[in-house]
Amino acid sequence: MKIGFIGLGAMGRGFAARLIAAGHDVHVWNRSQGPVETLVKLGARAAESAADAAHCEVVHTMLADDAATRTVLFDGGVFSALAPGSAHVNHATISVAFARELAARHKDRGIDYVAAPVFGRPDAAAAGKLQVLAAGPAAAVARVRPLLETIGEAVWPLGEAAERANVVKIAGNFLIAAAIESMGEATALVRAEGVSAGDFLSLMTRTLFAAPVYQGYGSLIAEQRYQTNGHGFGMKLGFKDTRLTLAAAEEAQVPMPIAGVLRDSFLEALSHGDAELDWSALAEVSARRANLERRES
Amino acid sequence: MKIGFIGLGAMGRGFAARLIAAGHDVHVWNRSQGPVETLVKLGARAAESAADAAHCEVVHTMLADDAATRTVLFDGGVFSALAPGSAHVNHATISVAFARELAARHKDRGIDYVAAPVFGRPDAAAAGKLQVLAAGPAAAVARVRPLLETIGEAVWPLGEAAERANVVKIAGNFLIAAAIESMGEATALVRAEGVSAGDFLSLMTRTLFAAPVYQGYGSLIAEQRYQTNGHGFGMKLGFKDTRLTLAAAEEAQVPMPIAGVLRDSFLEALSHGDAELDWSALAEVSARRANLERRES
Amino acid sequence: MKIGFIGLGAMGRGFAARLIAAGHDVHVWNRSQGPVETLVKLGARAAESAADAAHCEVVHTMLADDAATRTVLFDGGVFSALAPGSAHVNHATISVAFARELAARHKDRGIDYVAAPVFGRPDAAAAGKLQVLAAGPAAAVARVRPLLETIGEAVWPLGEAAERANVVKIAGNFLIAAAIESMGEATALVRAEGVSAGDFLSLMTRTLFAAPVYQGYGSLIAEQRYQTNGHGFGMKLGFKDTRLTLAAAEEAQVPMPIAGVLRDSFLEALSHGDAELDWSALAEVSARRANLERRES
Amino acid sequence: MKIGFIGLGAMGRGFAARLIAAGHDVHVWNRSQGPVETLVKLGARAAESAADAAHCEVVHTMLADDAATRTVLFDGGVFSALAPGSAHVNHATISVAFARELAARHKDRGIDYVAAPVFGRPDAAAAGKLQVLAAGPAAAVARVRPLLETIGEAVWPLGEAAERANVVKIAGNFLIAAAIESMGEATALVRAEGVSAGDFLSLMTRTLFAAPVYQGYGSLIAEQRYQTNGHGFGMKLGFKDTRLTLAAAEEAQVPMPIAGVLRDSFLEALSHGDAELDWSALAEVSARRANLERRES
Repeated sequence: MKIGFIGLGAMGRGFAARLIAAGHDVHVWNRSQGPVETLVKLGARAAESAADAAHCEVVHTMLADDAATRTVLFDGGVFSALAPGSAHVNHATISVAFARELAARHKDRGIDYVAAPVFGRPDAAAAGKLQVLAAGPAAAVARVRPLLETIGEAVWPLGEAAERANVVKIAGNFLIAAAIESMGEATALVRAEGVSAGDFLSLMTRTLFAAPVYQGYGSLIAEQRYQTNGHGFGMKLGFKDTRLTLAAAEEAQVPMPIAGVLRDSFLEALSHGDAELDWSALAEVSARRANLERRES
Repeated sequence: MKIGFIGLGAMGRGFAARLIAAGHDVHVWNRSQGPVETLVKLGARAAESAADAAHCEVVHTMLADDAATRTVLFDGGVFSALAPGSAHVNHATISVAFARELAARHKDRGIDYVAAPVFGRPDAAAAGKLQVLAAGPAAAVARVRPLLETIGEAVWPLGEAAERANVVKIAGNFLIAAAIESMGEATALVRAEGVSAGDFLSLMTRTLFAAPVYQGYGSLIAEQRYQTNGHGFGMKLGFKDTRLTLAAAEEAQVPMPIAGVLRDSFLEALSHGDAELDWSALAEVSARRANLERRES
Repeated sequence: MKIGFIGLGAMGRGFAARLIAAGHDVHVWNRSQGPVETLVKLGARAAESAADAAHCEVVHTMLADDAATRTVLFDGGVFSALAPGSAHVNHATISVAFARELAARHKDRGIDYVAAPVFGRPDAAAAGKLQVLAAGPAAAVARVRPLLETIGEAVWPLGEAAERANVVKIAGNFLIAAAIESMGEATALVRAEGVSAGDFLSLMTRTLFAAPVYQGYGSLIAEQRYQTNGHGFGMKLGFKDTRLTLAAAEEAQVPMPIAGVLRDSFLEALSHGDAELDWSALAEVSARRANLERRES
Repeated sequence: MKIGFIGLGAMGRGFAARLIAAGHDVHVWNRSQGPVETLVKLGARAAESAADAAHCEVVHTMLADDAATRTVLFDGGVFSALAPGSAHVNHATISVAFARELAARHKDRGIDYVAAPVFGRPDAAAAGKLQVLAAGPAAAVARVRPLLETIGEAVWPLGEAAERANVVKIAGNFLIAAAIESMGEATALVRAEGVSAGDFLSLMTRTLFAAPVYQGYGSLIAEQRYQTNGHGFGMKLGFKDTRLTLAAAEEAQVPMPIAGVLRDSFLEALSHGDAELDWSALAEVSARRANLERRES
């Protein structure tokens, strides 16, 4: 199938590579040229522009956020280049409000729109181990489903309204941030009584909380290993996603006190210069509030 | 070994049964007579009083809380009946402050004191699948460790200060309550956008959050199945444990904003008459705040 | 002086009337015609368009929020109609970020920009009893100060950066909302013990809290008199201002946990259909969480 | 009248002095001797023991908290020394639960019990400018009312159940703490935009918030003048009163999210060694979370 792929960041390049490997004719575009060259070596064709990559039967986009998506789609001519009858699969973590807007605008022009955000990190993307959410008109989802199955390990259909996939992605990231904040508060408490974060978290994450989120972030917290070196999920991204939670909750009139707690913890991390650390460094905010350093010195 | 076992609630009777099965001479006592009779059939001896059960080499107690422990231990004569040189293994989830007091008082009288709270539900207790924490003087822990291994699946040593086992137990229960509240808030959000709690939670708990706590409570929330019928972990117990968290945090001067959120959610559940429901019914508090019922009707 | 006045809502019409009464030649514009006619009877001239009203030495705008201000100023042609050397006095409660943007854009075109939000209700506006904040370049503030003194009882200069007046206005409204929420929580507590809200609040507001904010909103809470009938300050406006607080705090990286509490209380009020009530009806949210109605029946 | 007065701290000695000045025969007792001597010079008689001071028609107690009251009343023999038919006026800020217990125990012995906590600082006590709350059986309140009027500027009757006076005192102190925290958060926000705390708070406290609480604590915050030098209301007392709020809210099942915020702010102040500062130093917690010092340096 002739497929366009726009946005070749750490995640997007993994998706595109899997589509190429599955035998598709993939036309790629990215703001910077490096990832394009990498994918061309794998068999992709370099589109001349984002709009050019949109002249395909199915077009995937994987852009950073609402603003980047809006810029490429509308200022960059992608949306107007999409042909009626084609399909647009949007993998980005965008706001519920913007997802609703996009679904309506595509519908007006007779283009199938499928929201397909994913759970998983870049290594899972490359290995095809992602969880892929999917929401949109049933026929549209059915049409692109083989592609989503190529990209991920499992596809989770969430109904006809595109924004449902986005609210699930946002709520999932909220659960992760809440787990991090909870581990941060709990470890501050046990450390104040002389128990190491490592002893506590290894017990928890081998038993009651033996799940990827707790194990992954738990080990970063236990080792205070917050440098991302470009990998990992940084404080700014975490805060961005908390803002998406708060915006969705506001639009839906749903009080979420833990989201408010997260907001303040992120702001405190940012005001202390921790923008470049992994978001599990929220645990340091709890430690600072309790002045643990002074006690343990 | 001649062992005393005091407190045969849902958990304690499981421990005692395993000690009996391992060949020990177990002298049991309980406030009500029923569980005593059950254990006598398994081979236990019925002590005439709590103090009588304390005339053993090792005495286990598994009582409901600080107040019950204080009553049986001091008013009931157990503490003074313990012989210097004997060992007292306390499985109860008690406050950090009380644990510290008990450790000091036992030390004064030359009695080994080991704090050994557990993670797991009664069925895990009966099956020997519990996680057993252990803190106390190294020699004391070594002495009772074979008994702890009889009771549980794994023993997690936490150092010489008894209260460390208790703060870990308290912090673990805080993590569970935080996970429940987070799931409650997140499901209120997705439900407001038309996604069912079941669709959301089954995705989460099969992937990122594939851990016993999320799976167990997640399914109760998804099905709104909050009747405990005497099983399960009720709202009042959950609130009691949140109070232990808040008390420990206060004593240690550790701010824990999520514990404050939990406190208010529990109070709201209690003020609405939900004291007898499973603590996962915290999710209903989130739903009520968002007035989901009105929307979905 | 030839003055333009754009935005004749409950507040703006009071300001304009005072400028007319002081002898100025005031050219007024409003989206709806009614208030224009009222002011023409007092001696104003009706401008043909918003842009037309901007052909004056000093132009005042008093619009609802960021969006309304942006629409009238930029889409409505007001900004481009302002002559270099003229002055623009903006009384609206707008965001810190937008204030910063406006200050920069006016400076680029050589127009004096003064942020002059006010504290006080429409009756205070009509009586010239408002508190007027003022921030902008010193010469600009000096130039329009006589007009501000005509409008209000006192002028409070806040420096050269326009957004300082806006952040003070926003922080002041935050203090009011926090006072309302605090009174709501405190009265829920005393009511649960059988003390009426009236007895409690009359004691507080005649003594320790004998200030306009507590007395005004305290009496609404004591009497549960939340119908605004078009007067008063509604829940939606209160939530809008809490959003301005949260946005300012986010931009400035200042954790504000009470603002987070306010956000959730407003959302709970809105989800229960209280959008048209006075914002002091936040007290009903506290009462509902504590299920006071059930107890007092 | 023959009056006993037990507890001559900064507040109690002022009350006792006013009773002496009004011509009563006042028998005083205090744990330390200094204040006793001062009052003897004013005309009091020194009781030989606390119990001895209780052999009077009316006995006032003004002790630090629940624990001190319990110690003096029960261990110190005061309660058993009270004659049936006598009256006990308790001015202390104690918990709602303890107030309820005391009312019941006095009633059992036929002693009039009146809860009469006060609002005001020691200088107001000396000047007779306090607000005096009063709750207890109507006849009991009527009997001691002339004494309460001697002590304070106004007496506020709150019904027959003694604990109602205590819950009002507690809720009032909650309002004060909430006002401090709100000012702290608001000033952190304006300071981050370059507005001084003094400029902001002087505007607020001369206009919308022109009340003693805001003016008094506002000026301490504006000047960062937190040293109490033995005067003032310290962080530990403030935290004690927040605990009374939380305990009352828990007993009454009233969620109070702002009380939760206060708890964490107090804990953060205490963990940073600010126990001896005035409770208005909560504002420093907000400043530290926002890292204002770094920005302003």
